[in-house]
Amino acid sequence: MSELFVRTLREDPADAEVDSHRWLVRAGYIRRVAPGIYSWLPLGLRVMARIEQVVREEMAAAGAQELRFPALLPREPYEATGRWTEYGDGIFRLKDRKGGDYLLGPTHEELFTLTVKDLYSSYKDLPLTIYQIQTKYRDEARPRAGILRGREFVMKDAYSFDVDEAGLERSYARQREAYQRIFDRLGFDYVIVKAHSGAMGGSMSEEFLVRSPIGEDTFVRAPSGYAANVEAVDVAVPEAADATDAPPAHVEPTPGTPTIQTLVDALNADHPRADRAWTASDTLKNVLFTVTEPDGRRWDLAVGLPGDRDVDGKRMEAELGEGATFAPFTDEDFARHPQLAKGYIGPGVLGEESATGIRYLLDPRVVDGTRWVTGADQPDSHVLDLVKGRDFDADGTIQVADVRAGDPSPDGSGPLELERGIEMGHVFALGTKYSEALGLKVLDPNGKLVPVHMGSYGIGITRAVATVAENTCDEKGLCWPRELAPFALTVLATGKGEDVAAKAAEIAGALAERGVEVLLDDRKVSPGVKFADSELLGMPTVVVVGRGLADGVVEVRDRRSGQSTEVAVDQAVPHLLELLG
Amino acid sequence: MSELFVRTLREDPADAEVDSHRWLVRAGYIRRVAPGIYSWLPLGLRVMARIEQVVREEMAAAGAQELRFPALLPREPYEATGRWTEYGDGIFRLKDRKGGDYLLGPTHEELFTLTVKDLYSSYKDLPLTIYQIQTKYRDEARPRAGILRGREFVMKDAYSFDVDEAGLERSYARQREAYQRIFDRLGFDYVIVKAHSGAMGGSMSEEFLVRSPIGEDTFVRAPSGYAANVEAVDVAVPEAADATDAPPAHVEPTPGTPTIQTLVDALNADHPRADRAWTASDTLKNVLFTVTEPDGRRWDLAVGLPGDRDVDGKRMEAELGEGATFAPFTDEDFARHPQLAKGYIGPGVLGEESATGIRYLLDPRVVDGTRWVTGADQPDSHVLDLVKGRDFDADGTIQVADVRAGDPSPDGSGPLELERGIEMGHVFALGTKYSEALGLKVLDPNGKLVPVHMGSYGIGITRAVATVAENTCDEKGLCWPRELAPFALTVLATGKGEDVAAKAAEIAGALAERGVEVLLDDRKVSPGVKFADSELLGMPTVVVVGRGLADGVVEVRDRRSGQSTEVAVDQAVPHLLELLG
Repeated sequence: MSELFVRTLREDPADAEVDSHRWLVRAGYIRRVAPGIYSWLPLGLRVMARIEQVVREEMAAAGAQELRFPALLPREPYEATGRWTEYGDGIFRLKDRKGGDYLLGPTHEELFTLTVKDLYSSYKDLPLTIYQIQTKYRDEARPRAGILRGREFVMKDAYSFDVDEAGLERSYARQREAYQRIFDRLGFDYVIVKAHSGAMGGSMSEEFLVRSPIGEDTFVRAPSGYAANVEAVDVAVPEAADATDAPPAHVEPTPGTPTIQTLVDALNADHPRADRAWTASDTLKNVLFTVTEPDGRRWDLAVGLPGDRDVDGKRMEAELGEGATFAPFTDEDFARHPQLAKGYIGPGVLGEESATGIRYLLDPRVVDGTRWVTGADQPDSHVLDLVKGRDFDADGTIQVADVRAGDPSPDGSGPLELERGIEMGHVFALGTKYSEALGLKVLDPNGKLVPVHMGSYGIGITRAVATVAENTCDEKGLCWPRELAPFALTVLATGKGEDVAAKAAEIAGALAERGVEVLLDDRKVSPGVKFADSELLGMPTVVVVGRGLADGVVEVRDRRSGQSTEVAVDQAVPHLLELLG
Repeated sequence: MSELFVRTLREDPADAEVDSHRWLVRAGYIRRVAPGIYSWLPLGLRVMARIEQVVREEMAAAGAQELRFPALLPREPYEATGRWTEYGDGIFRLKDRKGGDYLLGPTHEELFTLTVKDLYSSYKDLPLTIYQIQTKYRDEARPRAGILRGREFVMKDAYSFDVDEAGLERSYARQREAYQRIFDRLGFDYVIVKAHSGAMGGSMSEEFLVRSPIGEDTFVRAPSGYAANVEAVDVAVPEAADATDAPPAHVEPTPGTPTIQTLVDALNADHPRADRAWTASDTLKNVLFTVTEPDGRRWDLAVGLPGDRDVDGKRMEAELGEGATFAPFTDEDFARHPQLAKGYIGPGVLGEESATGIRYLLDPRVVDGTRWVTGADQPDSHVLDLVKGRDFDADGTIQVADVRAGDPSPDGSGPLELERGIEMGHVFALGTKYSEALGLKVLDPNGKLVPVHMGSYGIGITRAVATVAENTCDEKGLCWPRELAPFALTVLATGKGEDVAAKAAEIAGALAERGVEVLLDDRKVSPGVKFADSELLGMPTVVVVGRGLADGVVEVRDRRSGQSTEVAVDQAVPHLLELLG
């Protein structure tokens, strides 16, 4: 400890939002260099190396071969797949001395695809799964929570290559199983959820989310076991309703009701219903956006959804596809469409193939036969008993309404529950998207050139360090599981006697000789500082050589439980060897 | 082999200049992505990992601790040391989405210094040596020879921190010894040479050069063992000469003699000497340059040196310091100095503190009392018997004349020999340059704040892969030393019988079970292809299971010598285990 390059801090870093960030900095595992960019001090690097080792072992067991692509990549392949543009501000771009365009790789689909194309040409060469553990770059708008969402980070990314869909399914299953073994070994409490795959193409996509209140991902679970990222939850679509008894639609004056709440209040005051009060879910609100595609093209979008729902930004992003952005209508946008009565917009103006040129998409709950109160397209007026299918229609549906606990599960198994998780892994049956864009074809057994079916499989290595720290730390500091701790144990000498220091060094030396990685706190500081630091640094076992030595015992403490056992000095080494397995 | 992600090529890559590049690409170890940027395929990555392992073991043995800094670095610290500017076009610069300036780290002096400053404050914390194995970036003007001089490459860089010069010397010696062990283990034939350290500040600097005809570094050796990079060779300065008998200087017409050769011919024709003919070394030539400092400031330089020597660009760069550039005088430059008679320029106009404003520096061989023929500062005229010290002087000396085999050694031990080498390591006593620029000070035992003495120690990891390949390959392909080979041996089955394939697989399996890394060539290709590929891939031992099996023997071939031994089948595994040690 007197030689280890570490310095513990008594104060939280000013920018720490989450426990793992706080403790990893205070315990001297990582150090911030710039927003989202960190140095890995010796203790932190040791944890990362152990996680990498677990990943390498399980990748090898799953038949995946390691290679390494550069981080500095030329523009051309990313141009071919359209991602040079799609990434927008999200990647770091640069020019070399000759003016050539480069980027710092955020993911490596292009390189994997091109390299296999370069080397392989026949179905006989497949299946193949290759991976790298490598530094990646994303220019995040909001780098967050220390190393949990950094701008320079380490990922394991694997890709599988198969001649057909059935092969891809086998490769996908093999990686998926490897991920389960990896996350089990890392001690994660995780859920495999269905992920949104629309925009990226491909048939199947699942995320491994580690349950955590600080997670950025919200996912749902149903009683059946169905689990999905909120972006990927399908709305449980009700049956079409019978509207034969519905009265004709009628416009009513509703002065001063530009919001759902004012409208509901006015309905209950001026148009009370016998059976029940009006609620927001009886209304259909129409929300307007401008969408900008990655290539700069812009279009107008109206989303019609029940008045008790809001548009969820993440679901919207997922539906629009990678690289597209959206923004609510501004006054200038409304000025372009004088037909729109702000606050009172309805399907009358927006409806299917309307003259406005605005694309009108409905929440899937708005099924035929449902009856709505919605804008009458003139100020201070709404239309009541407007029936979908009878009185209006739209250009299609869009699943962007927020998902709520209690919503029915799409598989009909009951109400959904909502939880938060950290996205730790992602397995993705890409299909032929990249092989077609980059011309990766092989001869199949019939001598026909076919595009290769690819899968992609990622694990955030630096994020895993943060997640383990986050989920194992307590109010005293870090608290590593044995397989991942930088050292197996800490040996402390407390008390002033030379014999105490000598015995601590002797025990540490004897363990080290047997291959145990020991951190000996040989500093000339108070026992209080040593105890506090040993708890902050978080090795799973702490051996205290102190006052008890006079009685022939040392103390063995478990960092997590805090429980301590007295062990006879001459039994200390065998006892510890047994404890460490 | 049927599953390994590799494809051997029968043709040399078009851009291959050196053997290592050629074979590493043809054997499927690396693949070019962009100029100076390579992918590491599984075989290449295995070699790199083995070299990293050797380095890690020796760094640990030398008490150095591993950490890892980011590659993407903010501008500020590099601004503080002046290197943001000094690097010129040599680094990759980029901006993030907020317009902040970043660079891809070419070296990490700044980060090491600032991190130690952040953590440490007292002499009690020192000595400290920390290192990283990390990807670095330089925007080389001419990336060369595959991975030998790349733009993205892996380096081990260590830094030592001591409270005083004596401590630095100890840390330096310890790293230097570790380097010797590392390079011995890598099997390098290397020389430790004195390196130029002027521009970077610091007191001591040595390079580890691996002897190689393709090396970019030229170094000299003297009979005493003295060895130095050409940039660092001190000129053996002769004693001042006695010029009391020298006739007075006299200007002579020398029409049409603007070059040294025309001048020497004219002297021998028109001013023959009794004792010996005139040679170029009797003349003093004055060569003019414009120098541009990193901050953009420009100045004029005249170098006076014996006419048989040329200015060596690398020695000039070393003398001018990092980031400064120079160019020969253009017509425009001469136009700025009408006093200069092009082709006939002499110390008359240039001499000490001359009115031209040109800085005039002499080769150190031009000592007091030496007698010269040189320009008379008017067309078609030279001055003879011009004596240094008596007739002219300069503003100082500069060691930029080329170094030649046969030149006297500066230590007087005899003539220098010239050799070429690949710079594989560099150890450098930086002193306090960076600690002063960045404010890294600690309290010394007297409670005084003193700047920390730093050393820097680098090894090119990717370059080491290329160098091992370069120095061990032969006309058939790669030929790895046992410690670095991707696999310990290749097992080949030749012949068609099922029993041959089964026996090969059995031997490979038995060895693998005992921890030997075996490459089994199980492909259904001809024996010729298998033999050729086994030689190209270069595992040190090849086991051939083939025709001999009927007689109960297998063949064990040594890749380097080509010699083969027959071994009884049932003795193959124990024989090989013994061979592999």
